[in-house]
Amino acid sequence: MEVENRYVAVRHHVEGSPSESDFELITAATPVRWTPESGEVLVKNLYLSVDPYQLNRMKRHSASHLAVDVIVPGERIAAYGAGEVVASGCAEYEAGDIVAGVLAWEDYTLFRPSPAVLMSKVDASDDFPLSYHIGVLGTSGMTAYGGFYEVCKPKKGETVFVSAASGSVGSLVGQFAKLHGCYVVGCAGTQAKVDLLKDKLGFDDAFNYREEPDLKAALKRRFPDGIDIYFENVGGEMLEAALANMNAYGRVAVCGVIAEYTDPGRRAVPDLLEVVYKRITLRGFFAYDYITRFHEFVGIIGGWIREGKIQVVEDVSNGLESVPSAFAALFRGENVGKKLVKLA
Amino acid sequence: MEVENRYVAVRHHVEGSPSESDFELITAATPVRWTPESGEVLVKNLYLSVDPYQLNRMKRHSASHLAVDVIVPGERIAAYGAGEVVASGCAEYEAGDIVAGVLAWEDYTLFRPSPAVLMSKVDASDDFPLSYHIGVLGTSGMTAYGGFYEVCKPKKGETVFVSAASGSVGSLVGQFAKLHGCYVVGCAGTQAKVDLLKDKLGFDDAFNYREEPDLKAALKRRFPDGIDIYFENVGGEMLEAALANMNAYGRVAVCGVIAEYTDPGRRAVPDLLEVVYKRITLRGFFAYDYITRFHEFVGIIGGWIREGKIQVVEDVSNGLESVPSAFAALFRGENVGKKLVKLA
Repeated sequence: MEVENRYVAVRHHVEGSPSESDFELITAATPVRWTPESGEVLVKNLYLSVDPYQLNRMKRHSASHLAVDVIVPGERIAAYGAGEVVASGCAEYEAGDIVAGVLAWEDYTLFRPSPAVLMSKVDASDDFPLSYHIGVLGTSGMTAYGGFYEVCKPKKGETVFVSAASGSVGSLVGQFAKLHGCYVVGCAGTQAKVDLLKDKLGFDDAFNYREEPDLKAALKRRFPDGIDIYFENVGGEMLEAALANMNAYGRVAVCGVIAEYTDPGRRAVPDLLEVVYKRITLRGFFAYDYITRFHEFVGIIGGWIREGKIQVVEDVSNGLESVPSAFAALFRGENVGKKLVKLA
Repeated sequence: MEVENRYVAVRHHVEGSPSESDFELITAATPVRWTPESGEVLVKNLYLSVDPYQLNRMKRHSASHLAVDVIVPGERIAAYGAGEVVASGCAEYEAGDIVAGVLAWEDYTLFRPSPAVLMSKVDASDDFPLSYHIGVLGTSGMTAYGGFYEVCKPKKGETVFVSAASGSVGSLVGQFAKLHGCYVVGCAGTQAKVDLLKDKLGFDDAFNYREEPDLKAALKRRFPDGIDIYFENVGGEMLEAALANMNAYGRVAVCGVIAEYTDPGRRAVPDLLEVVYKRITLRGFFAYDYITRFHEFVGIIGGWIREGKIQVVEDVSNGLESVPSAFAALFRGENVGKKLVKLA
C-alpha cells in the first residue's frame, strides 16, 4: 500500500521566537510505502499535539538534545498524537484500531511496534473524546501528574503556585492541587485566562503577570504565608520572584521555562541564598520519566474526569497546515489549555 | 564573679567584601557578671570559628536572616567555638569542663543550657586537639557529612566535583567522597591549594580556577564522562559550568555561594534547560539541619581521623584581635582549610 504524505518541517534551526515562516508544509517526494511483511503499522493521523518544548529541539544547540532528538531542517518532526490504523503488519494492531502515542506532524505515520516506541491502543469502548488521549490522558497528564505528585510531594494544606497555569500542564496541576487539599494560585497572561482559572478550574486565586510590575510583591500579596510548592513552567523573573516568596523546605518542580526558550537573555538569576537558607529543592523532570507508570497515571486522571473533578481545556486548530501558526502562537500565549491540531 | 570582656563587632552593616575597618574590638562597658543562682555557665573562650556565612548575617537584607539572626552593629557576634568553663550555675557543667558549641567572638561567653543551645562537653579522655572540635568535629564536619551523604546521596563509582575544595567543608567532602569510592576533582584558587588537594588530601585531580579562562571546558577536560555530584560552595560561573557538565539525574548540594556573598552581580545564571532535561536536583541545606544527628556524624568522622583516613587542615590565627583580619582574608581566599582563631 502506498499513500501520499505531507509533513511539516522547519526550514532552518530556530533560535528565537518561532514564526510561521520558519516552517514549510512539504509533500514527500516518495509516497509512504507499507507492506504486510514489513511488520510496520500505518496510521492515518487524526490529532497532533503542539507543545512548547519542541522549540528546544529546533535549536542548533540545546541541553534538550541530550534527552530528545534534535529536529533536522527539512525532516519530519516527531510529535505526540492520535490516529487510526490503516494497515498493520503485526498481530498487536489491526486496521480500524485507534492509537495514541508518538507520531509526527504529518498526514500518515509508519511505526514499528517496540517497547521503545510510546504507543498505545485506545480501548474501543472508551467514551472520552479522542483528543483527550493526546493531552489530559497523554503526555500533558503524565507530566502534570508525575511533576505534581512525584516531584512536588504535596501535603494537604500546603500552598501551591503554578505559572503558565492555563496551559496544558498548568491547568491540570492546579486542579490536582485543589483535589489534594492545597491552596492554589496561578498566573497567566490575559484576563480571560485568569477568569478561567478562578471560575472554571477552581484555583483559589489567579493573576495576570503582565499587569504586575513587581512580581515579588504580586506573589507576596497572594501568599502572605509563603509558597510551599512552585510548579515552574516559565522561568526568568517568575522563578526569582517565587524563590523570594518560598517557605523553608519549599519544592520547585522545573517542568519547563518557556520564557527562556525564545530568549536566553531572560534567564532567571536566582538568589541562591534563598535556596540555601530555606533548604529549597529545585528538580527538573519530564514526562518520559514516568513512562512505566503511564497507565496508572492516566487511569487515575480518567476517573477524575468521569467524576467531574477535573475540567479539560483544549484549544483546537484545524488541518495539518495550521501546525506552524498553532506552534508560533504558543509563544505569544495565544492558546488556552492544551493546543491540538485536528487533521481533516 | 565578674570578668572584663572584649568582643568583636561590626561598625555597620557590611554589604560587599569585608575589610578589617568594618570591625572594631570593643571592651564591654560593664563586666560579665555571673552568679551561682543565675543558672548560667561562664566560659573562657579558647578557640573561635571564622566562617564565610557570617558575612550574610552582617548584611542589612539577606535571605539568611530567615534562618540565622542578623548581626547588629556594635553588638556581640555569635560564633562556634570552644572554651573552658570558669563558673557554672547548673549541675550539668562544672569549672574546668571543656565545651564546644555556640559561643561568640569575645573573650568570655555566658550561656544558659537549654535544648535550643548547641553546646556539648568535650570528653576529658578525648585525645583530639581541641581545635578539631570547632571544625572537623564541629559544624564543618556536620555540614560536610550531612551535605555529602544526605543531600548528594552518593553511589560508589560516581564522579564528584567540589568547589572551594581546600576550605573547611570542601576539604572534608572530597575526602569523604574518596572513602566512598567516588572519583573526585576539586577546584581552588592557588597552586599551593591544588597541590594540597592532590598530594595530601587524595583528590583524583584538582585545578586552579583562576587559571582557567573557560570553566566549562576546564570541567569537561576533568570529567569527560560528566559530573554526577556537585558540592557547591561558590556559585556564580562555577555553577553554570558545573550544570553544563552534569550527567542525567545529577545532584547539586548547595552548601554556600561565597562568590555571590560579596557581589550579587556575580550571581549564577543557570541554563534551566540543563536542569529539566538532565533531571538535575539542586538542594540547599545547612549544618543545623543535622543537629539531631550531630553525635552520630562526628563519631564517624572521629573514627576516620583515628584510622588516618581523614586529614585535617587548619589555619589558625592568634588572639581575639585577629578575628577581623582572619574573617576578611576568607573572602580573598587566603585561608587553607578550617579558619580558626586561638585566644591567648
